[in-house]
Amino acid sequence: MAGGNKKESTVTVVESKEWYLSAYAPQGVPNTNHLKLRNVSLTIDAIPDGHVAVQILLLSVDPYLRARMTGSEDGLYTSQFKLNEAIRAFGIGRVIESTDSKHAKGDIIVYPFFPVAEYCVIPSDPTLRKINPAEGIELPDYLSCLGIPGFAAWVGIKLIGEPKEGSNVFISAAAGGVGMFAGQLAKLKGCRVVGSTGSDEKVKLLKDEFGYDEAFNYKRETDFDSAISKYIPNGIDVYLDNVGGKMLEAVLNHVNYRARIALCGMISDYNEVWTEREGVRNLLNMVGKEVRMEGFMLGSYLGHFEGFAKEMEEYLNKGMIKSKQHMYNGIESFLESLASLFSSSNNGKVIVQVQSWTGA
Amino acid sequence: MAGGNKKESTVTVVESKEWYLSAYAPQGVPNTNHLKLRNVSLTIDAIPDGHVAVQILLLSVDPYLRARMTGSEDGLYTSQFKLNEAIRAFGIGRVIESTDSKHAKGDIIVYPFFPVAEYCVIPSDPTLRKINPAEGIELPDYLSCLGIPGFAAWVGIKLIGEPKEGSNVFISAAAGGVGMFAGQLAKLKGCRVVGSTGSDEKVKLLKDEFGYDEAFNYKRETDFDSAISKYIPNGIDVYLDNVGGKMLEAVLNHVNYRARIALCGMISDYNEVWTEREGVRNLLNMVGKEVRMEGFMLGSYLGHFEGFAKEMEEYLNKGMIKSKQHMYNGIESFLESLASLFSSSNNGKVIVQVQSWTGA
Repeated sequence: MAGGNKKESTVTVVESKEWYLSAYAPQGVPNTNHLKLRNVSLTIDAIPDGHVAVQILLLSVDPYLRARMTGSEDGLYTSQFKLNEAIRAFGIGRVIESTDSKHAKGDIIVYPFFPVAEYCVIPSDPTLRKINPAEGIELPDYLSCLGIPGFAAWVGIKLIGEPKEGSNVFISAAAGGVGMFAGQLAKLKGCRVVGSTGSDEKVKLLKDEFGYDEAFNYKRETDFDSAISKYIPNGIDVYLDNVGGKMLEAVLNHVNYRARIALCGMISDYNEVWTEREGVRNLLNMVGKEVRMEGFMLGSYLGHFEGFAKEMEEYLNKGMIKSKQHMYNGIESFLESLASLFSSSNNGKVIVQVQSWTGA
Repeated sequence: MAGGNKKESTVTVVESKEWYLSAYAPQGVPNTNHLKLRNVSLTIDAIPDGHVAVQILLLSVDPYLRARMTGSEDGLYTSQFKLNEAIRAFGIGRVIESTDSKHAKGDIIVYPFFPVAEYCVIPSDPTLRKINPAEGIELPDYLSCLGIPGFAAWVGIKLIGEPKEGSNVFISAAAGGVGMFAGQLAKLKGCRVVGSTGSDEKVKLLKDEFGYDEAFNYKRETDFDSAISKYIPNGIDVYLDNVGGKMLEAVLNHVNYRARIALCGMISDYNEVWTEREGVRNLLNMVGKEVRMEGFMLGSYLGHFEGFAKEMEEYLNKGMIKSKQHMYNGIESFLESLASLFSSSNNGKVIVQVQSWTGA
């Protein structure tokens, strides 16, 4: 305001758009009645000590976000998002100002709890991690094979499903972020891998790109029992469940002795209050076949993250694992990107590119 | 017929009643349309080499028997009973004739596959085991705490549920053969134990005799969610499921982080074809709470039997574990005894006393 040389009077303000929760959505896919975009002004210098100001580049769009918008504090997942606050997601940003000795201007950082926004000022904390992409690794890889979906696939297959060479592995939502990597990890273990997905195009993608032995379009082959009989005639040893409901029920009719079912999430259930969901009626099959079913959350496996990242980076470097991103452009596209998870219209890992980072 | 001294002409024939399967029962409790009693004549001397003729004393009546009468060869449990053949059950008998060097006349034996009959002639095999009851152990104990239900309780609690001191353990069908021992085993581990059962009398039995901390009558307290909130306010760490259906669903609304659910059998499901069963709608809760659910069959744990038997015999000797048998008298009572499992009218372990053994 008053010109001159007094440095401390220079305050940079950026305008940032952010998505906030205006109402909980107990049922259905969240829409503009629940999530709204607003402008906020952020002072990005003169930030408090121990903080960083960040320009957000990429945001990871994952099904668990929807579970944080039901308004039902049932102790599941992490807590519910708060009304009128920005919702938060795993992402990548560039530090544009720092009052924390651990982070310098220009650093590229990943953080699990970025606001779904263009800019933010956040206190430094141990989950905020600087990355130095190695050769052959692109930034979006940190949100896909090296991020939440890759880690979920690795935990689900390696630590819970425990397939052996030759095991019959079935994966639902197979072309989604988690399924895509889960299938490839199982193939690397020498398994026979079959996936279900929501379009013929994705069936082709699974078989041609990701090395699935078989795949089927659950919207076309709606008798899941028959489809599983056809594509997995020897029964299922390991199932990575991303959908729940009728597909889980069908799987339980085809499990082999001592099969393992890793429950990663149930996309068919997120948009229904539980009493309205289709129940699984054949859990009794788990007794006779001695099936083990286990839910998992990544937060409990953080001790394995480093080992996972090392293994995956090696696969990436050697071209042993492929990744496909479905990029949405601009913060405005977040709501559409979220909805795509539930309509099966996404094709690979869903990411919102908030800012172009190549010009960094 | 012709008197005289020619020993080889003396052939002893006994009349024996046996229950055989005349029709499969896909749904409902099996009745006289499915199970019929008939007389057979058995030659009990002049038996083939390597055989024993046995007077059956006691038969163990367990829910899995019903699962072998559906007619649906779904690969669950052991195979279906064959039509027109005697059904088979775990039991105790007295050898009345033997052509096998390992078994002498007068031996008391247990065997998993006796015909549900008064007498039988069977080939000797390794599962046919002589018993010498120690002090303080009665023959029916071999069918209850030292038999199928005791072993199921031990495997379910010790190997699958793995409660720790102070764990909140919930057991359904708690006054049944398995539940009765499971609760006591959990109490011996220092757990807080709560059970559901089908009558006020059994609630009292659980609390007064078997040391349950709390118990409720699921026929009176039909809102299972409320009942669990009331009796297990700190949530469930270990659930031994003997019923499935709505009770399992209610449990999943009250599980603690990393709870274990041992699926022993699902009595509410045996009498329904699976498509008619009430589904469990809240399996998604297993994800957020990282719950592990595992079915088990005793056949897979036979390597643990000796260790189990030693431990249980010690408990019995020291009076640390109590047993209650619900005895039915005479082979004719088998059908009624089987039905009692599904009407919750049994009180403790259901056994048919085919013959009095005290006069042995």
